[in-house]
Amino acid sequence: MMLLFHQFVSPGSRKIRLMLKEKNLEFDLQIEKTWERRPEFLALNPAGEVPVLLFEPGGHPISDATAIAEFIEESFPDRPLLGQTALERAEIRRLIGWFDVKFNREVTQNLVDEKITKRLTGIGTPNSQAIKAGYANIHYHLDYIAYLSDRRSYLAGADFSLADVTAAAHLSCVDYLGDVPWDQHPGAKEWYARVKSRPSFRPLLADHIPGMPPPRHYADLDF
Amino acid sequence: MMLLFHQFVSPGSRKIRLMLKEKNLEFDLQIEKTWERRPEFLALNPAGEVPVLLFEPGGHPISDATAIAEFIEESFPDRPLLGQTALERAEIRRLIGWFDVKFNREVTQNLVDEKITKRLTGIGTPNSQAIKAGYANIHYHLDYIAYLSDRRSYLAGADFSLADVTAAAHLSCVDYLGDVPWDQHPGAKEWYARVKSRPSFRPLLADHIPGMPPPRHYADLDF
Repeated sequence: MMLLFHQFVSPGSRKIRLMLKEKNLEFDLQIEKTWERRPEFLALNPAGEVPVLLFEPGGHPISDATAIAEFIEESFPDRPLLGQTALERAEIRRLIGWFDVKFNREVTQNLVDEKITKRLTGIGTPNSQAIKAGYANIHYHLDYIAYLSDRRSYLAGADFSLADVTAAAHLSCVDYLGDVPWDQHPGAKEWYARVKSRPSFRPLLADHIPGMPPPRHYADLDF
Repeated sequence: MMLLFHQFVSPGSRKIRLMLKEKNLEFDLQIEKTWERRPEFLALNPAGEVPVLLFEPGGHPISDATAIAEFIEESFPDRPLLGQTALERAEIRRLIGWFDVKFNREVTQNLVDEKITKRLTGIGTPNSQAIKAGYANIHYHLDYIAYLSDRRSYLAGADFSLADVTAAAHLSCVDYLGDVPWDQHPGAKEWYARVKSRPSFRPLLADHIPGMPPPRHYADLDF
């Protein structure tokens, strides 16, 4: 059985959980408190970050969400999530980069890292300027999601892909905080409702950080 | 002829330039001052960032360094830079992530963005705390390069790969500032000397930002 080391509000971990479920693959989950820097975990991934996938017990660990996602797609090509042609894959990967780099820098780090990670690790205090920037920046990204899904059905084209998975992985972390202004962005909300209602998404909706419960609408498919 | 929109000290741009040369592909270069937010460029890449590759004049633009690199590898599989097996590719992509995410956050942003980008764009003033952090963080990464190249010859294995390209793309930007303490890291220096002497690297050594010349050793193969 595969084993995924993860954290609840880590977008990279959520990406891999969603992807494995979309591929109908069985796996076990283990929460890794990376800030404790457990030597056994550092031996698996010297970067000290989740996600890490152990493809088989005692096997070679695979680290880095992008590397894991590409490895899964290559190893399990059924139910493709990366398109059929080189150009389709380029568009999907462009949007993966959009969310993993740009959205991450402009929104996820400013909200999730400031409000949750700093509290969990006990390192630093939330920076109110960063949080303010996160609130301001998210609108532009929700507009872009509405723009894309209106023209293409899903973000990168007619089919659900790793671009949708990646965007939803980030947004669901922000949504755990109740910080996504869905009501002001009906187009993005319509897209998210479709993604959220996929069976692969269900386990994420049961995530619960002790002492930091999500808002009620977080797990509600009719939010 | 392919056209690459780039900037001199953009690690993503340098990655694609190196990769195209390693594949013996012909291309034209055009510097894009992304901070001017030229509408024609934003139409090619709404993220407003380099690199962007126009595969053919008027053709579909490909944006995001990772997406471009994967597209080139798929379209031109000769002289492979991403390994042969899924596990080899996973290791190469893990190290690409190491440099594009971790090294970028801990070193490149603290040194290159603070010292060069802020001056070029005229936005903000260099943050001395960030620069100090960049100087401190680079040692650990140079140690890791020495550790890997000592055991494997190249960073991800026996062969030169996109992991070496990515690491060298970042380090060469920092080296343009003269901020790589090579003399304290002979193992990393030995690896870099091998990469720097590849024919694909030569055009990067001629890069010259007006008013911000590189130190003399930057272009010297015997540095």
